[in-house]
Amino acid sequence: MKATVGLIGMGLMGQPMALNILRGGFELVVYNRTPSRADRVVQAGARLAQSARELASQCDVVMSIVSDPPALEACLWGPEGALAGLRRDSVLIDSSTVSPALARRVAAACAERGASFLDAPVTGGTWGAEKGELVFMIGGEAEVLERCRPVLSTMGQRLLHLGAHGSGQVVKLAMNLILALEVDALAEALALVRGAGVQADKLIDVLQASMARAAVLDIKAPLMLQERYAPSFPLRLMHKDLGLALELGNQVGVPLPATAAAREVYSAVRAEATEDLDYAAVARFWQRPKSRP
Amino acid sequence: MKATVGLIGMGLMGQPMALNILRGGFELVVYNRTPSRADRVVQAGARLAQSARELASQCDVVMSIVSDPPALEACLWGPEGALAGLRRDSVLIDSSTVSPALARRVAAACAERGASFLDAPVTGGTWGAEKGELVFMIGGEAEVLERCRPVLSTMGQRLLHLGAHGSGQVVKLAMNLILALEVDALAEALALVRGAGVQADKLIDVLQASMARAAVLDIKAPLMLQERYAPSFPLRLMHKDLGLALELGNQVGVPLPATAAAREVYSAVRAEATEDLDYAAVARFWQRPKSRP
Amino acid sequence: MKATVGLIGMGLMGQPMALNILRGGFELVVYNRTPSRADRVVQAGARLAQSARELASQCDVVMSIVSDPPALEACLWGPEGALAGLRRDSVLIDSSTVSPALARRVAAACAERGASFLDAPVTGGTWGAEKGELVFMIGGEAEVLERCRPVLSTMGQRLLHLGAHGSGQVVKLAMNLILALEVDALAEALALVRGAGVQADKLIDVLQASMARAAVLDIKAPLMLQERYAPSFPLRLMHKDLGLALELGNQVGVPLPATAAAREVYSAVRAEATEDLDYAAVARFWQRPKSRP
Amino acid sequence: MKATVGLIGMGLMGQPMALNILRGGFELVVYNRTPSRADRVVQAGARLAQSARELASQCDVVMSIVSDPPALEACLWGPEGALAGLRRDSVLIDSSTVSPALARRVAAACAERGASFLDAPVTGGTWGAEKGELVFMIGGEAEVLERCRPVLSTMGQRLLHLGAHGSGQVVKLAMNLILALEVDALAEALALVRGAGVQADKLIDVLQASMARAAVLDIKAPLMLQERYAPSFPLRLMHKDLGLALELGNQVGVPLPATAAAREVYSAVRAEATEDLDYAAVARFWQRPKSRP
Repeated sequence: MKATVGLIGMGLMGQPMALNILRGGFELVVYNRTPSRADRVVQAGARLAQSARELASQCDVVMSIVSDPPALEACLWGPEGALAGLRRDSVLIDSSTVSPALARRVAAACAERGASFLDAPVTGGTWGAEKGELVFMIGGEAEVLERCRPVLSTMGQRLLHLGAHGSGQVVKLAMNLILALEVDALAEALALVRGAGVQADKLIDVLQASMARAAVLDIKAPLMLQERYAPSFPLRLMHKDLGLALELGNQVGVPLPATAAAREVYSAVRAEATEDLDYAAVARFWQRPKSRP
Repeated sequence: MKATVGLIGMGLMGQPMALNILRGGFELVVYNRTPSRADRVVQAGARLAQSARELASQCDVVMSIVSDPPALEACLWGPEGALAGLRRDSVLIDSSTVSPALARRVAAACAERGASFLDAPVTGGTWGAEKGELVFMIGGEAEVLERCRPVLSTMGQRLLHLGAHGSGQVVKLAMNLILALEVDALAEALALVRGAGVQADKLIDVLQASMARAAVLDIKAPLMLQERYAPSFPLRLMHKDLGLALELGNQVGVPLPATAAAREVYSAVRAEATEDLDYAAVARFWQRPKSRP
Repeated sequence: MKATVGLIGMGLMGQPMALNILRGGFELVVYNRTPSRADRVVQAGARLAQSARELASQCDVVMSIVSDPPALEACLWGPEGALAGLRRDSVLIDSSTVSPALARRVAAACAERGASFLDAPVTGGTWGAEKGELVFMIGGEAEVLERCRPVLSTMGQRLLHLGAHGSGQVVKLAMNLILALEVDALAEALALVRGAGVQADKLIDVLQASMARAAVLDIKAPLMLQERYAPSFPLRLMHKDLGLALELGNQVGVPLPATAAAREVYSAVRAEATEDLDYAAVARFWQRPKSRP
Repeated sequence: MKATVGLIGMGLMGQPMALNILRGGFELVVYNRTPSRADRVVQAGARLAQSARELASQCDVVMSIVSDPPALEACLWGPEGALAGLRRDSVLIDSSTVSPALARRVAAACAERGASFLDAPVTGGTWGAEKGELVFMIGGEAEVLERCRPVLSTMGQRLLHLGAHGSGQVVKLAMNLILALEVDALAEALALVRGAGVQADKLIDVLQASMARAAVLDIKAPLMLQERYAPSFPLRLMHKDLGLALELGNQVGVPLPATAAAREVYSAVRAEATEDLDYAAVARFWQRPKSRP
């Protein structure tokens, strides 16, 4: 008999993940703080729970994908949180990007309740979530991963087991650090080229033909040239992830000089933005108005 | 009748470039401060000049590819420098990576002598130089580029005209800035992953499957895992190019925070190295011995 | 009748502060996780409580000075925490250095219990604590500060009222940011001078005669020259405070580029230290062994 | 008989230095690219030379104080440069702030002509120049310094001998690095305090009462609060000196992370300024307009 699956978080990622779980033939219970965001998924066959606790009490596998550590703490702990309803022998899988320390704290809370835990942040964006081509970066026991493979496979084939609890988050933060620096590097390069009086699109032509070519730049470079920053991966989340990476680096004593420099640039842009922006908008740091009163 | 070509600089790049010019059917005169490095090219049919001046006096197109700005100044100016021998109506093409300001200074010196100039730094590495697949980033007049196309085409098909004198150098510095930050980003990410107790090769697995994938990382990542740093593009030259990029940014008033941070890391590694290293060795910054007396 | 005062935290700062409160003629109850550290203060006349809750239940004014935010949370919340025992109409004064956000959270928790709160971090070090010459940076209501003036005055005359709850912490973090950068600046300058082959003590001579002179450098410079790093203000606490300052900056959208760079340097030194060090030991970053295996 | 002294450079520093040399009873010849700037000094008794060469040919001690390395090169080399007129057995003293490498190059050029050289950059600002209270940071031979003591003493009593040629410049750059970071630290702290909703002048009150107090901040803090940036030491010169310090650090392999971060901030402010500003205007980095088109 197939497992009943719960999914907490009906954001840009959660919705398409839910649809793929349903397509995979699983019974699905969903929960979101703002219930209306679950409408489309409920129409597709999911059941809406009134609380994370209620959801957990009905499921064999409980997944969560929310925007940041406080959001995760809010839906797990407390009288109406998932941990309060978590079944013995169930599995909690968190696909949010949070600190490895928080992942380990959740793992311990699950263990106290006789349940298992996987930290399983994803990469692939909304596009990968829709196509069922997410890559899962997984920390926890291999045996637990095997039990959850049928569910996770509905969302992506690549389930990379990276080590003990928290390892998924460690690798996710490291990967986002690379992405953030790649995009910031292009932004610095574009600003330099423009500042020196050369047309910025010339740099992109050369980039495509060179070793500096990178997957993320193929996508972001044209948008950066046109200053079109509709959020694919929001800058505020990348800024948060850089903060988590730096927090981890400072805990384990690994200095991250360029990451630290880039984080302050993302911070400046985030502070000045009045709308939600893609992280490619880091380029705005160099587009500030030059005149002053 | 085909142009007579001169090539100053018989380093890792200059030698294969010379062989391709010869293969293209051009008469070639070469010069190198240490003449023995020209042996292989001379055996292949080139003539060895005793000075850059002598070389220039015999050629229609004079190319140079040397390691840094002082080396370029040394082979162009002075009584035995190329400028002293440069023919009226000839073209000087510099493929070294130097500052745009120096490129413009050379352009002016050529103009005084009735000659033309192109700044034409290259990307593609020794591999591209050997295969004749270099990409040329060219600043100067389009008409001069057209005149030189037959010669340059023996070394690479992509001759990207980027703007006025100095534009080639501007774009080259911007591109190397991106490369340096990409590799530094991976080095920071690897150090973070290791410091957090996760196997570094796990990060590489995820990287290949993710948007953080980059051409340079496909090549450097395995070498960085194994700490094999035989120079493909030497760290000391990347360090120099970062210095030139920052100098340019500070001249034109474009702040480059992550580049500035990364340059100090490359500097620290360069200072501690006793041998010649690839720039991927920036990862050594995080491999310093932890014990102290 | 004089207030009964409680003091939680018998560290390097708490002990001399306790002795001054006693000297001021107040009844004093103290609590420390490790009770033996209170011995000297108990011998001087303080009463030792078995828990923070018990302490709070006996006092009109409850002070706390512990090492970091988790330590503060641990002694305030929970069944044996101070908040559980806090009397209606009493005042809680926290002199630890924590985030303004935590200060405001404590203020709210006090308000719920009908008590008042002041965040009142201090500067002056152990020397100022012993002499009763601490400077208090105070956030909260002016009227509450006036009620507590007799107690606080036993420890220092300068009670600077800086604004609403959290303001004390904001200014404390800003001040420590300046201190950390001043000392890091000297460390960079010393390393530069040495690296360029000039005797480091020459820089100190000039420094004393110049506008670059700073109070903290008068004290730290001789110790840095001699590499004597017995902790006056521990590096691990300065590193923590830089983290809090950056966290605050990133929350309110104020980029702090030099602070971010310096924090990574303090982090690297902290990670390599095997003993407790003063923050002047940031200079060790440039004294790493150069040889490698 | 008293030496005849020459002084090249009639800027904010050069003019008061010239007046003090005259007050000391020396015969003085001056030169400035824009002769009108020497008017006041000529009225006071100096003779105006038509070129640096002419000046040098008439003097026993030739001093120079100009704004940057290119300006120094321009007044020393070339057919009308001071080196062309330098007398055998005379002494050239350069009080500009330039790179140690350039100082050593000038020293070698002097030696070739049978003359001696001191690099002798100064600290003390226009105020110190007027009062005759400059501090000289001197590189070169002690015996040469002794010969020049009577002249230098008219401008300042503290003649600090720091080592071989270039040592004066090394220490000067290190000192300016500290000044630049101190002021940047205050600017970051002020921005943080403001961003967190606390009045900036509260920070200054605390600063004065704390270990973070620094001589330069006593002067700059009130001006920064009022955003009054009339140049005492111009930001463009501090930016140049940070560039020289970083160039030196990168040559000798000493990473300077906070200096590198701060330099980019000074660079951004310099680029946006339309008028000449004091380096305290680095605070403008955080006062950029937030609105965008």
